[in-house]
Amino acid sequence: MASQTDRANTIGFIGLGAMGNHMLHNLVTRYTPPRDGGQTAYALFDVNEAAVDSVIKHHSIETPEVPLVKCSSPHDVAKHASIIISMVPTGKHWRDVYVGGDKSVLSALRTLSDTERSATLCMDESTIEQSVSKEVALELRSAGADLLDAPVSGGVVGAENGTLAIMVGGDKASFDRSVPVLQSMARKVTHCGDLGAGLAAKIANNLLLGITMLGLSEAMLLGKRLGVDPQVLADIINTSTGRCWSSEINHPVPEVKVGELSPPAHRGYRGGFVTKLAHKDLALAVKAAEHTGVPLSVGRCVEETYRPLAASKEFADRDFSVVYEALDALGSSAGNAKL
Amino acid sequence: MASQTDRANTIGFIGLGAMGNHMLHNLVTRYTPPRDGGQTAYALFDVNEAAVDSVIKHHSIETPEVPLVKCSSPHDVAKHASIIISMVPTGKHWRDVYVGGDKSVLSALRTLSDTERSATLCMDESTIEQSVSKEVALELRSAGADLLDAPVSGGVVGAENGTLAIMVGGDKASFDRSVPVLQSMARKVTHCGDLGAGLAAKIANNLLLGITMLGLSEAMLLGKRLGVDPQVLADIINTSTGRCWSSEINHPVPEVKVGELSPPAHRGYRGGFVTKLAHKDLALAVKAAEHTGVPLSVGRCVEETYRPLAASKEFADRDFSVVYEALDALGSSAGNAKL
Amino acid sequence: MASQTDRANTIGFIGLGAMGNHMLHNLVTRYTPPRDGGQTAYALFDVNEAAVDSVIKHHSIETPEVPLVKCSSPHDVAKHASIIISMVPTGKHWRDVYVGGDKSVLSALRTLSDTERSATLCMDESTIEQSVSKEVALELRSAGADLLDAPVSGGVVGAENGTLAIMVGGDKASFDRSVPVLQSMARKVTHCGDLGAGLAAKIANNLLLGITMLGLSEAMLLGKRLGVDPQVLADIINTSTGRCWSSEINHPVPEVKVGELSPPAHRGYRGGFVTKLAHKDLALAVKAAEHTGVPLSVGRCVEETYRPLAASKEFADRDFSVVYEALDALGSSAGNAKL
Amino acid sequence: MASQTDRANTIGFIGLGAMGNHMLHNLVTRYTPPRDGGQTAYALFDVNEAAVDSVIKHHSIETPEVPLVKCSSPHDVAKHASIIISMVPTGKHWRDVYVGGDKSVLSALRTLSDTERSATLCMDESTIEQSVSKEVALELRSAGADLLDAPVSGGVVGAENGTLAIMVGGDKASFDRSVPVLQSMARKVTHCGDLGAGLAAKIANNLLLGITMLGLSEAMLLGKRLGVDPQVLADIINTSTGRCWSSEINHPVPEVKVGELSPPAHRGYRGGFVTKLAHKDLALAVKAAEHTGVPLSVGRCVEETYRPLAASKEFADRDFSVVYEALDALGSSAGNAKL
Repeated sequence: MASQTDRANTIGFIGLGAMGNHMLHNLVTRYTPPRDGGQTAYALFDVNEAAVDSVIKHHSIETPEVPLVKCSSPHDVAKHASIIISMVPTGKHWRDVYVGGDKSVLSALRTLSDTERSATLCMDESTIEQSVSKEVALELRSAGADLLDAPVSGGVVGAENGTLAIMVGGDKASFDRSVPVLQSMARKVTHCGDLGAGLAAKIANNLLLGITMLGLSEAMLLGKRLGVDPQVLADIINTSTGRCWSSEINHPVPEVKVGELSPPAHRGYRGGFVTKLAHKDLALAVKAAEHTGVPLSVGRCVEETYRPLAASKEFADRDFSVVYEALDALGSSAGNAKL
Repeated sequence: MASQTDRANTIGFIGLGAMGNHMLHNLVTRYTPPRDGGQTAYALFDVNEAAVDSVIKHHSIETPEVPLVKCSSPHDVAKHASIIISMVPTGKHWRDVYVGGDKSVLSALRTLSDTERSATLCMDESTIEQSVSKEVALELRSAGADLLDAPVSGGVVGAENGTLAIMVGGDKASFDRSVPVLQSMARKVTHCGDLGAGLAAKIANNLLLGITMLGLSEAMLLGKRLGVDPQVLADIINTSTGRCWSSEINHPVPEVKVGELSPPAHRGYRGGFVTKLAHKDLALAVKAAEHTGVPLSVGRCVEETYRPLAASKEFADRDFSVVYEALDALGSSAGNAKL
Repeated sequence: MASQTDRANTIGFIGLGAMGNHMLHNLVTRYTPPRDGGQTAYALFDVNEAAVDSVIKHHSIETPEVPLVKCSSPHDVAKHASIIISMVPTGKHWRDVYVGGDKSVLSALRTLSDTERSATLCMDESTIEQSVSKEVALELRSAGADLLDAPVSGGVVGAENGTLAIMVGGDKASFDRSVPVLQSMARKVTHCGDLGAGLAAKIANNLLLGITMLGLSEAMLLGKRLGVDPQVLADIINTSTGRCWSSEINHPVPEVKVGELSPPAHRGYRGGFVTKLAHKDLALAVKAAEHTGVPLSVGRCVEETYRPLAASKEFADRDFSVVYEALDALGSSAGNAKL
Repeated sequence: MASQTDRANTIGFIGLGAMGNHMLHNLVTRYTPPRDGGQTAYALFDVNEAAVDSVIKHHSIETPEVPLVKCSSPHDVAKHASIIISMVPTGKHWRDVYVGGDKSVLSALRTLSDTERSATLCMDESTIEQSVSKEVALELRSAGADLLDAPVSGGVVGAENGTLAIMVGGDKASFDRSVPVLQSMARKVTHCGDLGAGLAAKIANNLLLGITMLGLSEAMLLGKRLGVDPQVLADIINTSTGRCWSSEINHPVPEVKVGELSPPAHRGYRGGFVTKLAHKDLALAVKAAEHTGVPLSVGRCVEETYRPLAASKEFADRDFSVVYEALDALGSSAGNAKL
C-alpha cells in the first residue's frame, strides 16, 4: 500500500469510459502540481477492467515516467490517492462508489488517519441528481473529507481536446485546490457557488439547450411548410433575434449550412451529443423543478418529446438534433392523416 | 388628381403609427429614386387624421422641398401613387385597406388605365396571417397590380434608426423594384421566396424568439432555486451551448447584467417588444401550424403561457421578457402552496 | 472627524467627472455591505468643488437616508473612509492624490492607527501607466494599506447603466474584499493577476480595439474603391473571418448599418469612445511595449495614425471610429495628388 | 468531340489541387441542374495529369453513372463544356488558361458558333489580382462569352465540407445562372457587384483578417509581459471590445483555449490557413491599394511582417497564427539585446 507521502502525490480516477478516458489522458500529460512535490502518480479504477489495462498499456509507451496503478475498487483508489476524480456516465451505481459499503471511498476513509482524511478531496465530474450529490457530499464531510460537484460540458470532442467547461459547486477553499487539476482538462473552470451549484448550472444550461433545439426544429419546419427556403430562413434567424447556439453551430436541418464545419445533421446525425444523454439531463431538470416548485411547462414539454426518442433504437445514439427528423416525420404523417 | 407622370413619382404610405411614423421619416429623408425622374412626392393616409397632419407639419419645416399630400382613403392613396407601402399594426381591418369596398386600393385600381395598374406595386410591412395576405395579393394581381409581403423586425428602435430587417415574399422582379424603397428604412432587405415567404420567415423567427425567452426564464429560475447565483449562471450560459439572443442581449432577470446596455428588465420591463405584440406573433404561428399540419408542441405551450399575460393590464404593454417576473411569481405561490 | 466605527462603514470617492459621477450614483443606490454593519456613508472629493456640491444636493433628494460628506482633499477622504475609490481621467496629477505631499492619501495614513491603516483598501479605476500604478501601490503597502488597479471599460454609457467591465490587479484577498463594492457599478469584475495586471489587461484590449478599428477602416475603404458596395462588404465581413467588435457593433462607415442601434458614425461620430481617450490608451500601450521589449509594429503604426487626430480640434472629441473619415479624406487628396 | 447538346450539359473544371479536388467532388455529388436536361457531364483538366486520373478513378466507383472526361488543355475543356470553373492556386499562369495562346479557353471560343460562345460562362474561383481578372473578363466578353470572379473563403476544410463562402463579381444575369452550380460547394454565395467586386470583397476581408491576427498577437504578447495570465486576457478580450474572429475561433497563443475545438496553435500551427497564402492575399491588398491611392499604413505594416515568414521554410506552410510564435521569439531576442 501507498505511504502517506505517496498518497499526497497521487490522483485517483474512477470511470474510464468514452469521456473519462480522454480526460485522464489530458490530466496525465498536462497536469503540473502547484508546488513541486515529485512525480504525480495515478490510481485507476473502472468496473470494466479491460479499460484500465488498455489505458495503462497505452501510457507505458507514451509517458513511461508516470506511475499508473490499477485499483480493485473505489476503496482501493481512496487508499492510494488524496485527490479523487470520478466520471460515471449514469447515476445508477453512483452512490455505491462513494458511500455504498466496503468497496466505497467512505469505507476507505474510515481506515485512514485524521490527516489523511482531511487531505482527501473528491471531484465528481458526473452529471447526476443534485439532491443525491449534496447528500453524499455531506456524508463525506462528516467523515472528514470533501466533495465538489464538477460536471462538464463539451462532450467527447471537448474531453479529447481538453477544452471542456467545468462548473463547480462546493467549498471555496476546496475549489481553489481543484483548479490546477481540473484546468488540465478544461478551457474554463467556474466556481458556481455552494454544494450542488455546479450541477444546477449544468442542468439549467442543458435544459435551455434542449428547449432551443426543439424550438428551432419547430420554427424551421413551420417556415419550410409555409414556403421559405430553409437556408434563407436559417440565415435570417442567425442575423436576427431567433439566433441561438443550435442555429449557429449545430443546425438540425440537413440541407442547411451555417459554418465551415459540418454539424451531425450533415452525416445522418452521427456523433455529437447523443439523444439519450440529452434526455437524461432534461429528465434531471424536470425532477429538480418538481422538488423546488419551479413552473417548467416548456421544459416538461421538451422532456416529453425527447423521452420516446431516448428509448428508441433509431434515435437514442444519434445527436440530439435528430429531433428535427423525428418531428418532420410526425408532421408528414399528421399531414397525410388529414387528407 | 395626379397626372400619370406624377403618379409614377409618388409613393403612398398607409399607417402612420408608432412604427410607420418613423419609417416614413426615413423614407422621405433617405430615399433616392433609381433613375432621376424628378422629386418624389408622398401620399399619406391614416385612420387617425391628426397623425397625418402632424407628419405634414413636421416635414414642412424639415424637408420643405418634398411634396406631402394628405389622402382621404387607401383609394385616394392608390390614385396618387404607383408604389404603396402599408404598415398596419393589427390585421383586423387590414383586408379593408386593400380589397374592402369603395375606399380600398382595389377600387382605385379599377378606375386606372392598364399601364397605371401594371405599374402599381404594394408593399405591406404589417405582420398578419399569411393565408389572408396571399389571398389579397392574388386579388390585386387579378386587377393587374402586385403586392409583396414585407414584414419587419427591429421594433420602434429599429424603425427610428432606419435599421429594420425586412423579410420579403413575392415576385422577384417586384422585389428588385422594392429594394431601393425598403432599403431607406432598413439595414437588411431579404428576398425569402414567393408570396407569403416574408411572413413565414418573420413568424418562424418570432416563434423561436418566444420559445427561447420563456425557455431561458425557466432555466434561470430553476438554476436560481437550485442555488446558482443568477449572474454566474447567465455568464455560463453565454459562453456555453444555452446562449441565445435573449441571454446575450435582452436578459429577462433584473439582477443580471450582460452587456453595456440595460435591457428592459433593468427598468421594470418598460419599452422593448411588448408582450401583446409578442403574443400576437405566437398566435399567428400556432394558427399557421394548424393549417399546415406542423407539430408545434413547444410553440403551443409558449403561446398558452403568453396568452393570459397579453390579456392582462399588468403585463400586456411591458417587454415580453416580463414573462420571467410572471413565472417567478407563479413559482413562489406554487412553492408556498406546498407548505 | 470620523470615529473608527464610522470609518469602517465609509467609502471614499475621488473624482466625480463624466464617469465618476455615474459610478458613484450606482454605488450609492446599489451597494449592499457584505455584513450588516449599519448604513454606509460616502466621503467625496473632486478638484472641482461644484461637482461635489451638485452630487450631494442631488442625493439629498433621491437618497436622503445616505450620509454624503464633502471632503477638502484626498487626505481628508482617507481620514473618513476605509475603502477609497478613485477615478481620475488623466494621469497627470494622479500621483499627487495618493503619495504627493500633505494632501495625499499617504499623508493621512501616517496619522492613523495600525488597525486603521491595515483596514485601508484603495481601488483605482483610472487608466494610467502600469509602472506608476505599481510603484504607488508598493508605497501604500509600505504604509500598511493596499491598492488595487481596477480600470474599467464600457465608457460613459456603461458607467451610467452600471454595466462596466472592471479588470482588477493586486492581492487576492484585497480583490475578494473589493468585489461587492465594484459589482455595484459593473456587469463583470475579473481578477487578472498581481499588481498591474488589471491595467495590463485594459491596455492590451484597447490596443487591439484601436488596431481592429483602423484595420477595418482601411479594409472598407479599399473594398469600396475596388467597387464593392460598403453594405455588401460589411455583411460579408460580419459572416466571415474579418468580423470584430468594430464591424459588428461600432461600424465606422456612415452608410453602413449593422444592427438595430445607430453607431456614432450615423450621427457625425458624436458620442462614443472619443479619439483623444482612445489615443491615450494606445500611447500607454506603446510606452509599455518599449519598457518590456515587446515588438509592436502594428500597434505603433496605429498610435501614430491616431496621434494627430487626438491633437486636432476636428477629431479629438468625436468617437474614435472617425478615423475612417480622416482616412477617406487622406485617400481622396492622395488620389487627386496623383492626377 | 462533344455535340452542342452535350456541351450545354457539361461543366468544365480546371485545377484539381487541394481545394479544387474537394470542390469538384461536391459539385459532382450535389449539383442538380435547374431544368431537367439529362445527366450532367464533367470535363476535367489539371497540369498534373495524375490528379485528373485519380479523380476519374475515384468517381468511377463512387458515382459510376456520371460521365467524367479527361481533357488535354483549357482549350479542350472549353470545347466540351458551356460552364467552366477554374481554381488555380497562384496567379502566375492564370492568364494562360483563359487568354494565352492556342491552348486557352479563348482560342477554343474562336472555333465555336455564336450560340455556343454566348452560352459560355466561366467562373473563376481563384484569388488573383483584380486588374488582371477584369482585363481577361473583358477579352472573353469581346469573344461573346462571360466570366465571373468568384473567389472563395473557408479553406480546405470548407472545400471538403461544401461550406465555402463564395464572393461573386460580374453581370447579374450571369450570376443568377452561376448560383445553382456554386451553391453545391458553398454555404453562402453573394453577389458583390460588377466585375472584380468578388475579388475586392475577398481581398478586403483577408486584409482585415491578417491585421486582426497580428494585432491580437501583439496585444496578447504585451499583456503577458505586463503580467496577465494569457487565458484570463483571452477571456477578457472575448467578452469585450477587442474580440474578433481570431480571438474567438483561431487563437494564436498555444496555452489559450477558447472553444471546444483545438485551433492550429494547439498542434504546432499545423493545418489551417497557411502563412504563404495569407501573405499572398496581403500582398494583393497592398498592390491594389497602391493602384487606387488608398492609404494602407496598417495593412502595409502587416504585409511587411508576414513577408519574411512566407519566404521562410519554418513558417510558410503553417497556419498564419504562427505569427505569434515569430513575434514572441523576436520579442525575446530584442529583450535580451537590451540587457
